[in-house]
Amino acid sequence: MSGKALVGLVEYEMASAEVRAVYDDIMETRKSDWINNFWKVLAHDPVLLKRTWESIKQVMAPGALDPLTKELIYIAVSATNGCEYCTYSHTASARAKGMTEEQFMELLSVVGMAKETNRLANALRPPVDVQFQPND
Amino acid sequence: MSGKALVGLVEYEMASAEVRAVYDDIMETRKSDWINNFWKVLAHDPVLLKRTWESIKQVMAPGALDPLTKELIYIAVSATNGCEYCTYSHTASARAKGMTEEQFMELLSVVGMAKETNRLANALRPPVDVQFQPND
Amino acid sequence: MSGKALVGLVEYEMASAEVRAVYDDIMETRKSDWINNFWKVLAHDPVLLKRTWESIKQVMAPGALDPLTKELIYIAVSATNGCEYCTYSHTASARAKGMTEEQFMELLSVVGMAKETNRLANALRPPVDVQFQPND
Amino acid sequence: MSGKALVGLVEYEMASAEVRAVYDDIMETRKSDWINNFWKVLAHDPVLLKRTWESIKQVMAPGALDPLTKELIYIAVSATNGCEYCTYSHTASARAKGMTEEQFMELLSVVGMAKETNRLANALRPPVDVQFQPND
Amino acid sequence: MSGKALVGLVEYEMASAEVRAVYDDIMETRKSDWINNFWKVLAHDPVLLKRTWESIKQVMAPGALDPLTKELIYIAVSATNGCEYCTYSHTASARAKGMTEEQFMELLSVVGMAKETNRLANALRPPVDVQFQPND
Amino acid sequence: MSGKALVGLVEYEMASAEVRAVYDDIMETRKSDWINNFWKVLAHDPVLLKRTWESIKQVMAPGALDPLTKELIYIAVSATNGCEYCTYSHTASARAKGMTEEQFMELLSVVGMAKETNRLANALRPPVDVQFQPND
Repeated sequence: MSGKALVGLVEYEMASAEVRAVYDDIMETRKSDWINNFWKVLAHDPVLLKRTWESIKQVMAPGALDPLTKELIYIAVSATNGCEYCTYSHTASARAKGMTEEQFMELLSVVGMAKETNRLANALRPPVDVQFQPND
Repeated sequence: MSGKALVGLVEYEMASAEVRAVYDDIMETRKSDWINNFWKVLAHDPVLLKRTWESIKQVMAPGALDPLTKELIYIAVSATNGCEYCTYSHTASARAKGMTEEQFMELLSVVGMAKETNRLANALRPPVDVQFQPND
Repeated sequence: MSGKALVGLVEYEMASAEVRAVYDDIMETRKSDWINNFWKVLAHDPVLLKRTWESIKQVMAPGALDPLTKELIYIAVSATNGCEYCTYSHTASARAKGMTEEQFMELLSVVGMAKETNRLANALRPPVDVQFQPND
Repeated sequence: MSGKALVGLVEYEMASAEVRAVYDDIMETRKSDWINNFWKVLAHDPVLLKRTWESIKQVMAPGALDPLTKELIYIAVSATNGCEYCTYSHTASARAKGMTEEQFMELLSVVGMAKETNRLANALRPPVDVQFQPND
Repeated sequence: MSGKALVGLVEYEMASAEVRAVYDDIMETRKSDWINNFWKVLAHDPVLLKRTWESIKQVMAPGALDPLTKELIYIAVSATNGCEYCTYSHTASARAKGMTEEQFMELLSVVGMAKETNRLANALRPPVDVQFQPND
Repeated sequence: MSGKALVGLVEYEMASAEVRAVYDDIMETRKSDWINNFWKVLAHDPVLLKRTWESIKQVMAPGALDPLTKELIYIAVSATNGCEYCTYSHTASARAKGMTEEQFMELLSVVGMAKETNRLANALRPPVDVQFQPND
C-alpha cells in the first residue's frame, strides 16, 4: 500500500449537494457519524456513488438471509479476491453485527478449505455428477 | 469441459483397502450410498484423499457456524473462483441442507455486489480507515 | 459446462409482470426481439434482475467513454476472470458495435501482456515509484 | 507492502551494457529521463527484461486500437488482478496520455459492473445462447 | 465449453507464409507433426502468434530450471487460473516429458495447499516477518 | 498493508499447551528457533492451526517431487494469487533450500508466460485437442 488513494478523498465539507445526500443517507442508515474512505473516493463520480450505495443498501438489508450471514459471505469473497480494504472494512462490520472470534476463525477455515478443493477440482476436472444436476 | 477428467475415476470395486476406508467413511458421514467424482479422482493419491476428506469433515461439521451457513460460504468462494464442479456440488449440498431458492438468489446478490466493490476498492486504493483497524 | 443452468430459465411467457417489464425494456433498449439466458436466470430474483439491468444500462450508455470502448473493457475483464458466458456474450456485443477482428486480436494482446507483467510485479514487489503517486 | 522488493533494484550506474541498452530504449521510446522500478527488478534477468520490454513496446504501439484505449484496458486488467504496482503505473501512464478524471471513473464503473455480472454468470451457469456463437 | 472457439481455426493449408513459418518452427522444435488449436486461434494475428511462440520457446528451454520443472510450474499456474485448455495441454506436455502420476498428484497437493494458506494469509493479514525481508 | 493483522499475534509465552505443542513441532521440523507470524495468527483457532501445520508438513516433505521444486511451485501459486505474505515467506524458504537468483528469475518468467497464455486461451476458447485427452 503506497498510502495514497489514486484519487483524492471527497470530504463532506467540500462535497456537492448530490454527494452529501448520499453521505447523509449512509450515516443515517448505519446510525453512525462518519463516512469511510471507500465512499469518499467513489464520490468523484456521483452517479457511481449513488448507484453503488443504493445497491449495497438493498443487497445487505435483512431478507432470506440475515445481515450477519451476509457480512460473512462478503468477507469470504473479499478474502478470496485479495481485497485488503474490503477485508478490513467488512471484518469490522461483521464484528459490529456480533461476529465472534470463533465464528471468524471458522469462516476462514471454510474459505481456506474451499480454495484448496476448488483448485483440485479445477486441475483434475472430474465430470459433474448427474446427481448434482438440477432437476427440471 | 472436455468431458473427461485428467486422471481416471477410481471406482469402489477397483479401489485399494485404504481408499475404500475413506469412501466408506464419506458415505457413512453423509448417509448416502454413492461417492461423487471429486473423491474418485483424488483417490489416485490415497494420502491426499484421506487428508482432504478428514479436513473437509472437520471444517464442515457444526461449530460456531451452522452447516448451512458453511455451505453458503463454500458456494460464494467457489463461484468467485470460477470452479464449475464445486459450484454444482455445493449448490446441491446446500439445497439438501435446506437452502431455499430465495436464499440462493440472495447469496448471489451479495457475491456479485462484493465482487464489484472489491474491484472498485482495488482500483481506487482508498487507505484503510483508522476506525477499521483492530484494537490492541 | 454441464449444459444446464443451476436454476431454470424464466421464459417470457411464464414471467411475472415485474419480470416482463424488465425484459421489455431490455429488448427496447437493444432494439432486439429476444432475451439472452443471463437475464432468464437472474429473473428468479426480480429485484436482482431489475437492479442489474438498470446498472448495466446506466454504465454502458455513452459517456466519457464510447460504447465500443466500454465493450472492449468488458471483454478484458471477463477474459481475465475466466467467465465463459460473458466472454461469448460481450464479444458478440462488441462485434455488433463494430469491433473488427484486428481490434479483437489487439485487445487480447494487451490483456495477455498485462497479465504477464501483473504477475511479474506481484512476484517481485517493486516499490511504487514516487513519480506514480497522485499529486495532492 | 513491506516496502522492499524481493530482489534489489538494478540502477543504471551498476547495470551491464545489455541492461543499459534496454534502459536507453525505454527512455528514448517514452521521451523520459528515468526508469521505473518494474524494469529495475526485471533487470536481474536481462533476457526477461529485454523480451518483456520488446513485447510491451510492440503491444502498446498504435494499431487497430489507439494508445489511450490500450492503457484503459491495461488498467482494467490490473485492477481485476489486484496488482497494486500496475494500477499505479498504468493510471499514471493513462493520465499522461490524456485520460480525464471522468473517463477514469467511468472505466472503473465498467470494471466493477463486469466483475459483478461475471460472478453471477459463473454462479448460475446459463448456457451460452446460440445467437452468441460465432458463425462459421 | 460451447465447443466453438471465438475465432475460427487457421489451418496450415489456408495459412499465410508468415503463419506457416511459425507453424513449421513449432513442429520442428517439438519434433511433432501437428499444431494444437491454441496456435491456430492465435494465428489470426500473425504478430501475436510469432511473439508468443518466440517467448514460449525461449522461456521453456532448458536453463537454470529443467524443462519438466517448468512444465510443473506451468500446470500449477494454469490450474490456479482455472484455464481448462492450458491444464489439459500442459498436463499432456508434462507427461510427454516424463511426469509420473505420483508426481502429478503431489504437484496438485502443493497447489491445493498453497491456495488454502494464501487465503488464510490474505484474510488474516499477518505482517511480513523481518526475517523474510531480503537482505541488502 | 495497514501494518496490523486482523487478529492479534499469539506469542509463545501466552499460548496454550495445545498451541505450544504445534509451535514446538514447527521449530523442531524446521530446525529453527522462531515462529513466523502466519502461525501466530492461525493460533487463534488451535484446531485450524494444527490441521494446517500437519497438512503442510505432509505436503512439503520429500516425495515424488523434491522439496525445492515444491517451494518453487508454492511461489508460483502465491504470486498468481497475489498473496504478499506468502510470496515473501516462500521466497525466503526457497532461498534457504538453495534456490539461486537465476532460478528465481526463470521461475518468474514461466509464471508470467503462463499467465499470458492462460488469458489468451480463456479469451479465444480453442477446443481442447483430441491429442490432449487422457487415454482410457
